[in-house]
Amino acid sequence: MRQSHRFGITLKEAPKDAQTAAHKLLLRAGYIRPAAPGLHVIMPYLLRVLKRLARMFRVELNARWFEELALPMLQPRMLWDEPETKEQSAQSDGAVFTFKDRRGNILGIGAAGGPLLAAVAGKEIRSYKDLPRRIFQIEKQVCDDLDSRSALFNDREFLALDAFSLDADETAAEASYQTVTAAFDAVCRQAGLSYRCVEADPGAEAACGRHAFVALADSGDQTLLICDACGYAATQIAARSRLDVFPQDAAMKPMEALHGPGLIGVGPLAEFIGIPVWKTTKTLLFQADDRVVAVMVRGDCDVNEEKVKRQLKCRELTLASAQVIRELTGAEVGYAGGVGLPDRIIVLADHFTRERVNFECGANRTDYHNINVNWGRDLPLPTFGDFKAAQPGELCARCDQGRLRQARGIGIGSLSQLGPSASAKSPLACQGKAGTSQPVWMGSYRMNLNRLAAAVVEQHHDDAGIRWPAAVAPFQVHLIGLNLEDEGVRNEAERIYRQLLEEKMDVLFDDRDARAGEKFSDSDLLGIPLRLTLSKRTAKEGKLELKLRASPQSELVTPADALEAVRTGCQPEPERLPPP
Amino acid sequence: MRQSHRFGITLKEAPKDAQTAAHKLLLRAGYIRPAAPGLHVIMPYLLRVLKRLARMFRVELNARWFEELALPMLQPRMLWDEPETKEQSAQSDGAVFTFKDRRGNILGIGAAGGPLLAAVAGKEIRSYKDLPRRIFQIEKQVCDDLDSRSALFNDREFLALDAFSLDADETAAEASYQTVTAAFDAVCRQAGLSYRCVEADPGAEAACGRHAFVALADSGDQTLLICDACGYAATQIAARSRLDVFPQDAAMKPMEALHGPGLIGVGPLAEFIGIPVWKTTKTLLFQADDRVVAVMVRGDCDVNEEKVKRQLKCRELTLASAQVIRELTGAEVGYAGGVGLPDRIIVLADHFTRERVNFECGANRTDYHNINVNWGRDLPLPTFGDFKAAQPGELCARCDQGRLRQARGIGIGSLSQLGPSASAKSPLACQGKAGTSQPVWMGSYRMNLNRLAAAVVEQHHDDAGIRWPAAVAPFQVHLIGLNLEDEGVRNEAERIYRQLLEEKMDVLFDDRDARAGEKFSDSDLLGIPLRLTLSKRTAKEGKLELKLRASPQSELVTPADALEAVRTGCQPEPERLPPP
Repeated sequence: MRQSHRFGITLKEAPKDAQTAAHKLLLRAGYIRPAAPGLHVIMPYLLRVLKRLARMFRVELNARWFEELALPMLQPRMLWDEPETKEQSAQSDGAVFTFKDRRGNILGIGAAGGPLLAAVAGKEIRSYKDLPRRIFQIEKQVCDDLDSRSALFNDREFLALDAFSLDADETAAEASYQTVTAAFDAVCRQAGLSYRCVEADPGAEAACGRHAFVALADSGDQTLLICDACGYAATQIAARSRLDVFPQDAAMKPMEALHGPGLIGVGPLAEFIGIPVWKTTKTLLFQADDRVVAVMVRGDCDVNEEKVKRQLKCRELTLASAQVIRELTGAEVGYAGGVGLPDRIIVLADHFTRERVNFECGANRTDYHNINVNWGRDLPLPTFGDFKAAQPGELCARCDQGRLRQARGIGIGSLSQLGPSASAKSPLACQGKAGTSQPVWMGSYRMNLNRLAAAVVEQHHDDAGIRWPAAVAPFQVHLIGLNLEDEGVRNEAERIYRQLLEEKMDVLFDDRDARAGEKFSDSDLLGIPLRLTLSKRTAKEGKLELKLRASPQSELVTPADALEAVRTGCQPEPERLPPP
Repeated sequence: MRQSHRFGITLKEAPKDAQTAAHKLLLRAGYIRPAAPGLHVIMPYLLRVLKRLARMFRVELNARWFEELALPMLQPRMLWDEPETKEQSAQSDGAVFTFKDRRGNILGIGAAGGPLLAAVAGKEIRSYKDLPRRIFQIEKQVCDDLDSRSALFNDREFLALDAFSLDADETAAEASYQTVTAAFDAVCRQAGLSYRCVEADPGAEAACGRHAFVALADSGDQTLLICDACGYAATQIAARSRLDVFPQDAAMKPMEALHGPGLIGVGPLAEFIGIPVWKTTKTLLFQADDRVVAVMVRGDCDVNEEKVKRQLKCRELTLASAQVIRELTGAEVGYAGGVGLPDRIIVLADHFTRERVNFECGANRTDYHNINVNWGRDLPLPTFGDFKAAQPGELCARCDQGRLRQARGIGIGSLSQLGPSASAKSPLACQGKAGTSQPVWMGSYRMNLNRLAAAVVEQHHDDAGIRWPAAVAPFQVHLIGLNLEDEGVRNEAERIYRQLLEEKMDVLFDDRDARAGEKFSDSDLLGIPLRLTLSKRTAKEGKLELKLRASPQSELVTPADALEAVRTGCQPEPERLPPP
């Protein structure tokens, strides 16, 4: 490519609303342009990066028996929603953009492809012998996201890889899940990304587990908890941790109700009573669909509502209103406890409240707190489980050795094992070995290529600009011609350019009528891994200046040596190869 | 690829609603699956065809200095519409799907990319020195089309190539237009398409002309008029023709009004008066925005409303109501004529009404017809122009030799020269040579790759299935293994398959556990150009059966000869090469 034909200019300053390094650099280098809130034009050179990434995914997935297809973006509402439960208005509904077509039918864009794929697969897969089937698409997707603060991280439109696996049983489904994980790992590694595949909250759909691919970056929108001892990593919402356990009293003491008005928070409460905070208990009342639930965690913890929702399999979970609390506990907000709650209230308690002897909890009486409370004696045994929010500094629940540390990252992909029923509305089934119908196990996997590209920039840049890893760089070589008004230099530059093209190198030739300083600063900003500069000075010696973007040094080399360096240092696009 | 892993089955019968051969065959062969009215899943093997087409366009456009980018699909309404003139309701608006996002802003999908591109280009192009710039994208597009009768012809979602040229003046703009035409020609020729690049109605936007690429097919939705003498071709709406001219009377006769009640149509009228039909005149009154216009054409012709609209530069043109006609002519509908119309009515008359002496027209008096009417004497000279609809059998207006014949075709693409102002709302300008602002000329070009693929099928099939031309075929070779339960045959088949893969051939290996008859009929249906069959019988002789899909003959050849035939007969994917 000749830079003189480039559609897109470089900017000295990034617009003020650009906050992350990736956003600033992508804008300054002319890789993206704003089109509307949360929407960008992908300019030609960034499209090359996205196409490289797409090709890397194709190579990895094709090698693992995945076939590529294209699902329609427009979907009839029946595929992704229950029309009877929502009003038929044509406006954006969650992350899906909803509208009416000319016939008056409701359509949407932005819905997950799984239900549509399941509907199609139902007719293509007749028997267990037709399984496994592995399918993917790489298409633009949209999502009506309110929080589009940083370019490409949260854009409402992005290039997405969506893969699906259809398997006959759990073992095969797990193998598919692992093979997609391996494919994603391969691409992220090649792209030079520092990332983690972390446990994520399974949400409502992923009956059998979910993971997220997260690129590590302080500017990211995801909070992770990581154990450096065993490698366990999870999103904060999904993370499991162990609390420090303390020696307990040998004998139970009689329960007492203490008068302690106006104590806000467990700290002042513990101090007032003269006990450690871990002996206090937080009891929160929730409205879970049409039930009321009490959740008890140790005073030094918070309730993780997602874990509670999963335990209860409820759709909505909200804190109970003051009025409901008053009716059920007979006390103002802040004094709820496990003792003496009405029978119809389900009580959940975190594992780490269990072993305590003589603990504190609210007395269900305004201004009063029970102390020396004990399970079984003062209140019935609740349903114990993992209901607390994990915090940095707590022990890893997997290895019990390391302490979790907090990190931030950019969510770039997810894997969901949907289990034996892809869609509750129309479960996918096929003929089994015994001749009877058996369910098909479905897995659903997504990578957001825009976020992936932005994460690479976020991790690979310096003050002067981007430093693309070779595997994802828009070009492999930046050939800079200086003093091109000199016919000899011009001819030599053109000759080298042609030679690089003949070697099938992705080369960008800066043949513009611009000053050396501008060319170099644009080159640093663009971030192509290898730079060759030809000027009157170097041409006189029959040489070129060779410089790696990642290194401050440069050296003078002959054209032949330059070509050799390009050949060894560059990563041409991976070839599409079918599986064996 | 191994056919045993294929996602998609073949069908014995096409669904009843499939009407065209392409629709039936694409469904039966498993290339597409219906998803909703006017929407299809592009199954894996058809996606390979579309990708081949996309790559062919990329190669041709890259070689002509076009850079690829990706515009967002979601567009804020201000870019494609005047919010103040339409109600802010979130429903489909013309071909654009319109909806509100979570913020309450109106967005649309399906709008043309031109205005958005012009808005972006306004900031990237500062001076005439930054021109020309040539840009394209190959992305999914949507269109809220009511008439989705045949698969892929009128699908509401399709893969589209959208190209744009930005030039400094008319000469450069015309060169860009020609270069895109050449690129489109190159792809259509390679794809084995029988097509025409025809003059099309410029519509409201294309100030300086428009052409359409139309694949010839009787099942097509476009009507063309073609002159076989000079090659002129146009859509029926845009076509220009010459009428046969007849000898005229030497002298004018006195005008008379004849009483002729109840004469419906020019035939009975001419018979009643005793004149040839070409002496009669059709005068139609139109409401053109806020004006009333009379349009006169020869009685044997019809008015072409698009030509009238273009002449008047009006937005809306509708036949005047009976009441308006009564008020203006003083007569019932059917008796309007050019003589004695109120002055404020604009009168347009077709060229071919001009040379007539002593013609007929309505008398603006119920039941009366004027005869022996003459321009200048009985009525003022109107604005003459081409206002009639061209009909098959008429003389070609370009060469004046051939007679137009009618043909039908599938519209697959269009080219529009938008002229010096891409968007009336925000004309694109840059700094000119003299330092003052000068307009940028914009051209806009589109190809619908789905329609192109379907047109190829419509033109290349027989009763047994599709016959893909090699350049667009999903695979180049179909390797069919029979008697694979025999270990020797299986090993030999696997060896040949691996060898074809190593030669980088697009090969589909039918390794399924199915009978020979099923494999052959599926192979004919899929339509891969070259078939190699290995069976126990051929393996015994150390040979393969080689058969071209397009030929009934087959021959036994050695594996080495088969490979040589594949090498010479196949068209590997074109390589992406940048321009010089």
